[in-house]
Amino acid sequence: MIQTKLKAAIRDIPDFPKPGILFKDITPILKDAALCCDILDAFSSELKDIQIDVVAGIESRGFLFGLMLANKLGVPFVPIRKQGKLPFKKIQQPCELEYGSAILELHEDAILPGQKVLIHDDLLATGGTVSAATRLIKQLQGEIAGYAFVISLDFLNGKEALEKENCRVISLISY
Amino acid sequence: MIQTKLKAAIRDIPDFPKPGILFKDITPILKDAALCCDILDAFSSELKDIQIDVVAGIESRGFLFGLMLANKLGVPFVPIRKQGKLPFKKIQQPCELEYGSAILELHEDAILPGQKVLIHDDLLATGGTVSAATRLIKQLQGEIAGYAFVISLDFLNGKEALEKENCRVISLISY
Repeated sequence: MIQTKLKAAIRDIPDFPKPGILFKDITPILKDAALCCDILDAFSSELKDIQIDVVAGIESRGFLFGLMLANKLGVPFVPIRKQGKLPFKKIQQPCELEYGSAILELHEDAILPGQKVLIHDDLLATGGTVSAATRLIKQLQGEIAGYAFVISLDFLNGKEALEKENCRVISLISY
Repeated sequence: MIQTKLKAAIRDIPDFPKPGILFKDITPILKDAALCCDILDAFSSELKDIQIDVVAGIESRGFLFGLMLANKLGVPFVPIRKQGKLPFKKIQQPCELEYGSAILELHEDAILPGQKVLIHDDLLATGGTVSAATRLIKQLQGEIAGYAFVISLDFLNGKEALEKENCRVISLISY
């Protein structure tokens, strides 16, 4: 079972990046090529009945499995980045994070109106980041096909924040 | 030819992130799943006679093809990140960039002594970042198996900076 393998691989780091936060370190997953392959297979299986035209991955850890997933699905990958990183014409949305705040950006040509976009990040916490990502996609008249996370911290209620989108929210392991 | 496809896809952005810099925007590549597949095949082909135990990818754009390449080779992926991002015990090296400076970090458990490490980033400019990455790998007693970049800006002489490592330096397209 992928949940058992993920649970064994994910490393808890207390008090990172701030006191009181128990950080989920995914770097041991990345060292296990077979487990990475399992993750891609699990995402594909969960998504097989959903139309996806584009995968959007959120900087930085959402780049890791995001591009692989887009390639496996045979669709474009678009990066959602922190302010100042994307070089072309872009749009912005502010976001509240579990610790701090930021501005996220997306290239204006990333999404065509009506395209169905899967938003990916490694971890769902409070949902502040993916909510900002959702607003970016909608600002370009894209539709949200679903959300795919490796990890969900359910006690932070991020899934509830995404419920109003009325689409599939996938996490391979929940805490 | 992959060079022709890459040249057609890469978008030049003048004066980003600073006046006088002609930035190579790879986001159009990421929207072309077939071209991404070609990139992986080209890397694999160029690397087929080199022993690689680990792929190290440099934040953030080195995460995109880095994890895919590691998975294709069936070896661990380790992220090299900017200061403050990696949660576990780590080592540091300063680096000089084309525009500005930074500190790069690597987890202490990322590399075992003697492991042969391929360093990957999307683009080779002056070589400041990959030189710092090289020092990180060597600090953990890893060996440099080679370097793989999608793009090399040869006029910035980054390849010369890596010559002393006496190993393969691959770039799929050069300017």
